[in-house]
Amino acid sequence: MAKPSPAREKIYIYGKHALQEALLHAPRSLRKVYLARENMSPELVAELGRNKIAVAELGSDRAGQLLGKEASHQGVVALVDPASLLVSLDDFIASLDMSTQPAVAILGEVQDPHNVGAIIRSAAAFGLSGVLIPEHRQAPVTGAVVKASAGMAFTIPLVSIGNVNHAVEVLKNRGFWIYGLAMNGVTTLHQEAFDTPAAFIVGNEGHGVRAMTLAACDITLSIPMNEQSESLNAAAAAAVVFYAWSAKHPGAL
Amino acid sequence: MAKPSPAREKIYIYGKHALQEALLHAPRSLRKVYLARENMSPELVAELGRNKIAVAELGSDRAGQLLGKEASHQGVVALVDPASLLVSLDDFIASLDMSTQPAVAILGEVQDPHNVGAIIRSAAAFGLSGVLIPEHRQAPVTGAVVKASAGMAFTIPLVSIGNVNHAVEVLKNRGFWIYGLAMNGVTTLHQEAFDTPAAFIVGNEGHGVRAMTLAACDITLSIPMNEQSESLNAAAAAAVVFYAWSAKHPGAL
Repeated sequence: MAKPSPAREKIYIYGKHALQEALLHAPRSLRKVYLARENMSPELVAELGRNKIAVAELGSDRAGQLLGKEASHQGVVALVDPASLLVSLDDFIASLDMSTQPAVAILGEVQDPHNVGAIIRSAAAFGLSGVLIPEHRQAPVTGAVVKASAGMAFTIPLVSIGNVNHAVEVLKNRGFWIYGLAMNGVTTLHQEAFDTPAAFIVGNEGHGVRAMTLAACDITLSIPMNEQSESLNAAAAAAVVFYAWSAKHPGAL
Repeated sequence: MAKPSPAREKIYIYGKHALQEALLHAPRSLRKVYLARENMSPELVAELGRNKIAVAELGSDRAGQLLGKEASHQGVVALVDPASLLVSLDDFIASLDMSTQPAVAILGEVQDPHNVGAIIRSAAAFGLSGVLIPEHRQAPVTGAVVKASAGMAFTIPLVSIGNVNHAVEVLKNRGFWIYGLAMNGVTTLHQEAFDTPAAFIVGNEGHGVRAMTLAACDITLSIPMNEQSESLNAAAAAAVVFYAWSAKHPGAL
């Protein structure tokens, strides 16, 4: 592929809340923090100093250069080490306590950064153990994703995977049941007991989970809905499934 | 207020899917359809003619002028009569069969058009009867909203209300229980039976449902989640609540 791996691109996060979450949960991921003059409080500068994080003034033009004009940065921009945000699948699996019947999300070609961020946010909220993110044909973890995650990208492991089908094989071998979210899924969400470790594949906004990937799933899972509706927004569907899973796993919250 | 009422602004919808849904469910809302030359199929032009809808060619510059450069219009733009998309609260309530214990969503200062569209899409998918949209301090129904709703804005009644607190009073008098979605809500979603007509207020992305509005609610409803998480995305939270309601009202689907 001509595109560089997402893990090698620079990630600029922005907004006060995102910086707070990064400082709280992953201070070592921060390489440099740019602050507008009015945000340079002595307390914040001291905290950054204690964590050995470089600080620079955010000039009025700089934020636009770094982020584009659309980003609502509130005078706070930070350069994040992408490698520090992403863990490998092997390390992630080694960290799991399988006796708790953990659950993970797998992104399968989700294209909208707002959806990716909202899915990470919901996964964290409902006690999933991680979000698996393929390197290709998938929106990578960017500042827009971190912002849409409301900073939760720093609290839940984000796992870099080569591709979905390989990760599915690895997870199956470790005892995970693989669920593909699909409009025509055979099992409805109401019916499912979720009594094994679970991996939920969330598909593309347009075409859903690829047929080849669905064929490798143990269960295709549908959300009962009005037949006039074709589907939910990808992030809405993920939230509903994660909620239903968490209802059976209150210990995960 | 200096801003015109949203119901008086022009709405341009865009994308092939949005036009299909409009033609299927609300052809009389379409005032004029602009098609790129390659989209002018004889079948589509004939169908528009049968519905007495004006057709014009969409020049390469025109879409950008109408929509801005960001919109993914696929060579299809249509001018919609806003009044035809919105119904009054009185007419809406008169149309409800209260014996079915209907549910409605009330938008309370939801600012992101993608969230508004996703909430409309979820409300339609889970069998709610309508989405109530205040005229002020709330993202109005625009082409971006219709697009994010995946065309469902044409299938579920969108109800124009002056403000949330007045609508709450009207709905209470008609026997609705008013639920405010709130992080610190007293009743958890798992506990709730949903055995009356229900109105769900979805609050602002940042500050949630206003305190004065929450005080007027019969029930403040929280979604059990990891305490490290402050909240869900507004549209994700709405989807989860609508799903939980629909699980108790399979007849609504």
